[in-house]
Amino acid sequence: MKIFQDIHNKVKELNLIEQRRDFHQYPEPGWAEFRTASIIAGKLRDYGFQVKVGKSIMGESRLGVPSADFLNSQYQRAFLQGGNPDFMESMKGGYTAVAGILNCGEGPVIAMRFDIDALDIEETTDPAHLPNIYDYRSKNNGVMHSCGHDGHATIGLGVAKIISELKQHFKGTIKLIFQPAEEGVRGAKSIATSGFLDDVDYIYACHLWSQLPLGHIICGMDGEIATTKYDAKFIGKEAHAGIDPDNGNNALLAAATAALNLHTQPMSSKGLSRVNVGKLNAGSGRNIIAGSATLCLETRGSNSLIDEQLMENSLKIIKNAADMYNCGLKLIPMGSAKAVTSDNEIAEVVKTIAEKIDIYENIIFKDIENRGSEDFTCMMERVKNNGGKACFIGIGANVNDSGHHTTTFDFNENALAPALETFLFTTYLLSNKR
Amino acid sequence: MKIFQDIHNKVKELNLIEQRRDFHQYPEPGWAEFRTASIIAGKLRDYGFQVKVGKSIMGESRLGVPSADFLNSQYQRAFLQGGNPDFMESMKGGYTAVAGILNCGEGPVIAMRFDIDALDIEETTDPAHLPNIYDYRSKNNGVMHSCGHDGHATIGLGVAKIISELKQHFKGTIKLIFQPAEEGVRGAKSIATSGFLDDVDYIYACHLWSQLPLGHIICGMDGEIATTKYDAKFIGKEAHAGIDPDNGNNALLAAATAALNLHTQPMSSKGLSRVNVGKLNAGSGRNIIAGSATLCLETRGSNSLIDEQLMENSLKIIKNAADMYNCGLKLIPMGSAKAVTSDNEIAEVVKTIAEKIDIYENIIFKDIENRGSEDFTCMMERVKNNGGKACFIGIGANVNDSGHHTTTFDFNENALAPALETFLFTTYLLSNKR
Amino acid sequence: MKIFQDIHNKVKELNLIEQRRDFHQYPEPGWAEFRTASIIAGKLRDYGFQVKVGKSIMGESRLGVPSADFLNSQYQRAFLQGGNPDFMESMKGGYTAVAGILNCGEGPVIAMRFDIDALDIEETTDPAHLPNIYDYRSKNNGVMHSCGHDGHATIGLGVAKIISELKQHFKGTIKLIFQPAEEGVRGAKSIATSGFLDDVDYIYACHLWSQLPLGHIICGMDGEIATTKYDAKFIGKEAHAGIDPDNGNNALLAAATAALNLHTQPMSSKGLSRVNVGKLNAGSGRNIIAGSATLCLETRGSNSLIDEQLMENSLKIIKNAADMYNCGLKLIPMGSAKAVTSDNEIAEVVKTIAEKIDIYENIIFKDIENRGSEDFTCMMERVKNNGGKACFIGIGANVNDSGHHTTTFDFNENALAPALETFLFTTYLLSNKR
Amino acid sequence: MKIFQDIHNKVKELNLIEQRRDFHQYPEPGWAEFRTASIIAGKLRDYGFQVKVGKSIMGESRLGVPSADFLNSQYQRAFLQGGNPDFMESMKGGYTAVAGILNCGEGPVIAMRFDIDALDIEETTDPAHLPNIYDYRSKNNGVMHSCGHDGHATIGLGVAKIISELKQHFKGTIKLIFQPAEEGVRGAKSIATSGFLDDVDYIYACHLWSQLPLGHIICGMDGEIATTKYDAKFIGKEAHAGIDPDNGNNALLAAATAALNLHTQPMSSKGLSRVNVGKLNAGSGRNIIAGSATLCLETRGSNSLIDEQLMENSLKIIKNAADMYNCGLKLIPMGSAKAVTSDNEIAEVVKTIAEKIDIYENIIFKDIENRGSEDFTCMMERVKNNGGKACFIGIGANVNDSGHHTTTFDFNENALAPALETFLFTTYLLSNKR
Repeated sequence: MKIFQDIHNKVKELNLIEQRRDFHQYPEPGWAEFRTASIIAGKLRDYGFQVKVGKSIMGESRLGVPSADFLNSQYQRAFLQGGNPDFMESMKGGYTAVAGILNCGEGPVIAMRFDIDALDIEETTDPAHLPNIYDYRSKNNGVMHSCGHDGHATIGLGVAKIISELKQHFKGTIKLIFQPAEEGVRGAKSIATSGFLDDVDYIYACHLWSQLPLGHIICGMDGEIATTKYDAKFIGKEAHAGIDPDNGNNALLAAATAALNLHTQPMSSKGLSRVNVGKLNAGSGRNIIAGSATLCLETRGSNSLIDEQLMENSLKIIKNAADMYNCGLKLIPMGSAKAVTSDNEIAEVVKTIAEKIDIYENIIFKDIENRGSEDFTCMMERVKNNGGKACFIGIGANVNDSGHHTTTFDFNENALAPALETFLFTTYLLSNKR
Repeated sequence: MKIFQDIHNKVKELNLIEQRRDFHQYPEPGWAEFRTASIIAGKLRDYGFQVKVGKSIMGESRLGVPSADFLNSQYQRAFLQGGNPDFMESMKGGYTAVAGILNCGEGPVIAMRFDIDALDIEETTDPAHLPNIYDYRSKNNGVMHSCGHDGHATIGLGVAKIISELKQHFKGTIKLIFQPAEEGVRGAKSIATSGFLDDVDYIYACHLWSQLPLGHIICGMDGEIATTKYDAKFIGKEAHAGIDPDNGNNALLAAATAALNLHTQPMSSKGLSRVNVGKLNAGSGRNIIAGSATLCLETRGSNSLIDEQLMENSLKIIKNAADMYNCGLKLIPMGSAKAVTSDNEIAEVVKTIAEKIDIYENIIFKDIENRGSEDFTCMMERVKNNGGKACFIGIGANVNDSGHHTTTFDFNENALAPALETFLFTTYLLSNKR
Repeated sequence: MKIFQDIHNKVKELNLIEQRRDFHQYPEPGWAEFRTASIIAGKLRDYGFQVKVGKSIMGESRLGVPSADFLNSQYQRAFLQGGNPDFMESMKGGYTAVAGILNCGEGPVIAMRFDIDALDIEETTDPAHLPNIYDYRSKNNGVMHSCGHDGHATIGLGVAKIISELKQHFKGTIKLIFQPAEEGVRGAKSIATSGFLDDVDYIYACHLWSQLPLGHIICGMDGEIATTKYDAKFIGKEAHAGIDPDNGNNALLAAATAALNLHTQPMSSKGLSRVNVGKLNAGSGRNIIAGSATLCLETRGSNSLIDEQLMENSLKIIKNAADMYNCGLKLIPMGSAKAVTSDNEIAEVVKTIAEKIDIYENIIFKDIENRGSEDFTCMMERVKNNGGKACFIGIGANVNDSGHHTTTFDFNENALAPALETFLFTTYLLSNKR
Repeated sequence: MKIFQDIHNKVKELNLIEQRRDFHQYPEPGWAEFRTASIIAGKLRDYGFQVKVGKSIMGESRLGVPSADFLNSQYQRAFLQGGNPDFMESMKGGYTAVAGILNCGEGPVIAMRFDIDALDIEETTDPAHLPNIYDYRSKNNGVMHSCGHDGHATIGLGVAKIISELKQHFKGTIKLIFQPAEEGVRGAKSIATSGFLDDVDYIYACHLWSQLPLGHIICGMDGEIATTKYDAKFIGKEAHAGIDPDNGNNALLAAATAALNLHTQPMSSKGLSRVNVGKLNAGSGRNIIAGSATLCLETRGSNSLIDEQLMENSLKIIKNAADMYNCGLKLIPMGSAKAVTSDNEIAEVVKTIAEKIDIYENIIFKDIENRGSEDFTCMMERVKNNGGKACFIGIGANVNDSGHHTTTFDFNENALAPALETFLFTTYLLSNKR
């Protein structure tokens, strides 16, 4: 098709690598993507999209938001590093979601999700690491794009630019979502519950995989694991351990009992399940009955029901442990992802498309291998519950041996252009389907 | 005083030792004193007392009552061993309290308590043991009067006989209470809560001590420890440990968690306190998630408030442990004693009296040394709360080295007559006080 | 083949049902099969087999043996119920294994295993239960053949009789093993470790399945789960809970801590695994620091390595829990089964044979569905480790809805004759293979 | 005595208050008293004492030493705040003990201990606080002399100056010890085990008490509580909580089990005892099996044996908890104090002396009221074990309502001069005793 050739030519003209390396140098942790998000918002506006930022597309259920002080300092840095002041103001306090809407007349509502956050990891100084060779290592100490979201954001901007240029060939409404705080599965829920997706017919997203060879594409990944994350704060009462320990309410022992009894839960006989207390911090002094304790918990399930029941039971255990020691309790939801299946309708289109793109020599239709959790599933679930279709696409981008979330993570920049074409071709076909 | 000489002579005429040895041969455990209690009831009637038996002087708060089957078999045995059929019928089901009331005209209401139960202990066959020498060893396998209550009951009958014979010298109303199930501190509460003591001005009781030398008397013991006893039954749900352990509710782990967290409670900084889980039985089979568990608990405190707060907190821990494992819970009160102080008004009378009785060479006014728990304290508390006075008297009766509750326990029968005189003289003085 | 017709005719002549119903009426629990085993021994002798009984074929590793008193009373009953006195003497103390050896000249050594024990289950009195209709309900209160081992023993005797009659058609050595105490996976290990199987080339056994339809045969079951069972006895030190609790060593808390920490073990990521503390009994009195505790534990694994590692770690946890509370410890192995694969060489012969037997309409070559644990696997492992082949055969025998180990369990007696033919035909082919 | 008048006059000439306020403005936490200790060393040298610093009087058993980085930064600050460079070098790494030795010919060896460290407490900015009125508030953020050790050090320098000036009146050898890190009972053990006290005949020290009225003196305090402090570091192994939790060794659960089981220990029936886990920090991430954990523990006992046995048992529990979870363990002693009795020989001299000093209107000979822990007891024990005598003197210095270790702590500066006289008079009498 002529249009595919036009798209291909436009993709070749884009400098995807330059854009990716810019994002890579200025990584920002979840809910603090002030520079990244505001630059994206500016470009979407330039490309003719209606731009929505912050609270207008975010419900009140943001999870795992850092302290105001921390966000403030990040905001200052973003300002100094070239954040777009036109949009930063309305992102204050960590409202860093951005969406661009393009109206192409009658037709389906098609949404794409691109995540934009980085991780609290210090990038390696190994001279053989490509960002060091080509001088685009992270400029932000202790923060690194070590999961490829810099690539995802770059693809999203490419989608925006080219669709806007070829607008007359597309039908319906295009919604491009740039999501904050995917790491820790914290950000998607807020956008999903805002209602912004409730008219969406098709939604899709991709992930670049550093450990899947370049040339592989998975047209619909199904192995995502449902997970829920909570912090539990036990509020006890301090007392002198020597003089009147019986006047205290021991939050440390409450948390210790909670931790042990959370781990005695039998695993599900209906699928994979997991529970973990990964952190526990309690007490202020050796000779004081501990007046406070915090415990970080997660559950996982091969389906959402297993995960939900396990978390429900886990919270019950925690409540009883707190009450056992006369402690108050604050339960803070910190993250959530679902176990959702990609719809064949989209996956088949992706497969058809992938066969037309040179680089893809290994096209996998559906794959159930467990690759961890991903909060795009919260958006998928929302769209599917409203009768829409959803699909999560995996793209091979292997360049070295390093896994995701490591200090030496990298992905193959040659995966960017074909991934971008995959989005554009798929969107073209779905938008013109009827 | 002439009356003292009269009493003394009457005491000498009584065959206290024969009566005691009869009781000793037919020991009956708590709530199963059918023979003992019915014989006492018969004698009280013969002495002209108004007799009250069973439910008429027992509230609904009997603690630690054995199974109906067990009580039935004990009832049958009592019948065969000479229980008085006139009174046994209304004792069925373990209603084995007996009281005798003697109206001596205007004057104070004076109550005395005599406990009558034995213990689940097999009496020694050692030929040097006095009951073996004089042939009055327990005829009931596995049951033994190894705390001297056979002596207490004997003294009580002596009081009844002589007061009835010298009735014209006494004023007011005499209430003699023969209490079941003192062991395990189970029986007093039921009589105290029945209201039978609510008009009492003076109440007293004694204990024969095998480890206090003959000739010692403690005119008011104050070192009793408050204690509360509970059984907790956890009702879980069985499931196959291999196939679907997640379908079970694990009562064993609930009880194990309860046990550990009961023992982490800090001891009181305001006095002595203790908590103990002495027994735990859980589960029906190795390959089954345990569907039930029972835990036996007690608390102690040097005052009743410490004991009560500790038990309140303990029950809270147990409830939370049950709920943690989705288990139901049944909490069964099994025993209760208070920490109550003897009133000086009675103790001083006892001291005056003791000085008149030859055998007492070592008269101790008040003593705070801890001698364990005693549920007469429940009656003392009731009477004191209604403005009456109460006193608990200790009587030395040493004859060998054996402690209470051992298979070789014995007391010196020469302690019986002076103890009886102590009751009679004290009652005479108190009854004629105004 | 002519021989198959001869065998078929001989099978038809046997009264298998009568024999099965005799065994059914006199069920005996594991290690107490004095009547069953001695009758079998007598018949084997009558059929011309060399008979081996008790210690001669049992190593010292008998697991889960009941008390001497219990075995004695069972022995007396067996005597009264027609046990064969020629053989009972050498079974005293629970040495109830029996084997028959038939020498048929040169050729392979072929072993077959038949288990003979019943369960501690009270058989239903429901009049619709077949044993009640035809009057062969268990005569032994609280004991029931509710897993079909009465059928297995019957088949074994049929094999013995017919092979002995057709001895000239068989080659090599035939070893028929009648195993005690399969329930609780206690008995096989003792025979396996005795060395009696060390010259065996082929070994096989079958299980009648009440929930597999009649006409189904599984020619090699592979889904057995490895399991290990232990009792842990904690030896603490009693002390008075009120007076000097610090002088005790609390076995109850040691066991409670062990139970909780056993259950916090993460399940294997390499296959199915399970751990369970099914029973815990601790302490002698409410007011005594518990001086002893017993905990009943099992582990399971989809392969033997998982099971072994889990038990090894479990025992480590128990040891540390005991030491934490200054308790001694006795670890008593109570049962063991392996996860072993049936060999194709035998399974293929069984399949060939099954096709020749009319009733088998549903012939399954190998099946991995998990059907619990079976200690024949200990024998299979021993034979395979010595270079022999092993196979476990499943035979459909559905007659009602009841599962194994229930009070209404029953199997279809029409499954007996074809099962017997399966053993005989298979043995014929294997014995004449070369 | 003439000498007493001479001493009195010299004390009056000293500007004790100025010296105390200097120390108060530059408080330094334990093991970081570089400025304080080096200034003291300089003055001792100026007064003619032989000065010993750092390792020469400190064994290898320094407890609870902070990180090298922290000590370094404190060292830099001390340098800027006027630390004496002649002595600071040999104090690097926290070797901040100082001693001055004065040889006065033949006679007893008399040691005095003055502690010099401050606390991690931020001094109040309340304008009514005397240090704010007279402008000597702490210049070091977050550090404050809130236990009066600035006063103790001031007294020590006064002793040094006046004894050196009146040297001819004293006999024997005078050893003045300025001890670091008394808070947390960390510093005395190192000096005691160095051997520096092994020739001492008499040792004494004092404490200014903000809650004892000015004019009170306790000539020998006996109520000190023995205590031991440990940190336990559990070294586990991290693993992904979703993928392969069974490959981890869970340090968090090990520490939680340790905490619970430490608190189930029965309290001593032979005296007061306490155990507390005041802090627990474990794990690095929610989705990671915790690979490390640290727990801060202390025990207390009304005598040293109770404390030692409780800590011994506690360490055993911790070791077993670590091993239960296959964790390595590092046990780090962090503090130690003894329960030691003051000797009458010195206490009587102090009493005699106190009666000669005007301000003391309330002279208490010996006092057993519990006033917490004090590591001077480690020195007392060492001296007593070598046949010497030891005494701990309490001096009333009440000025407001604030307790020790609070942000508003203060003591009455009028207590300094009489305290100094007490040391000087006592030393004069003891040194001239024979």
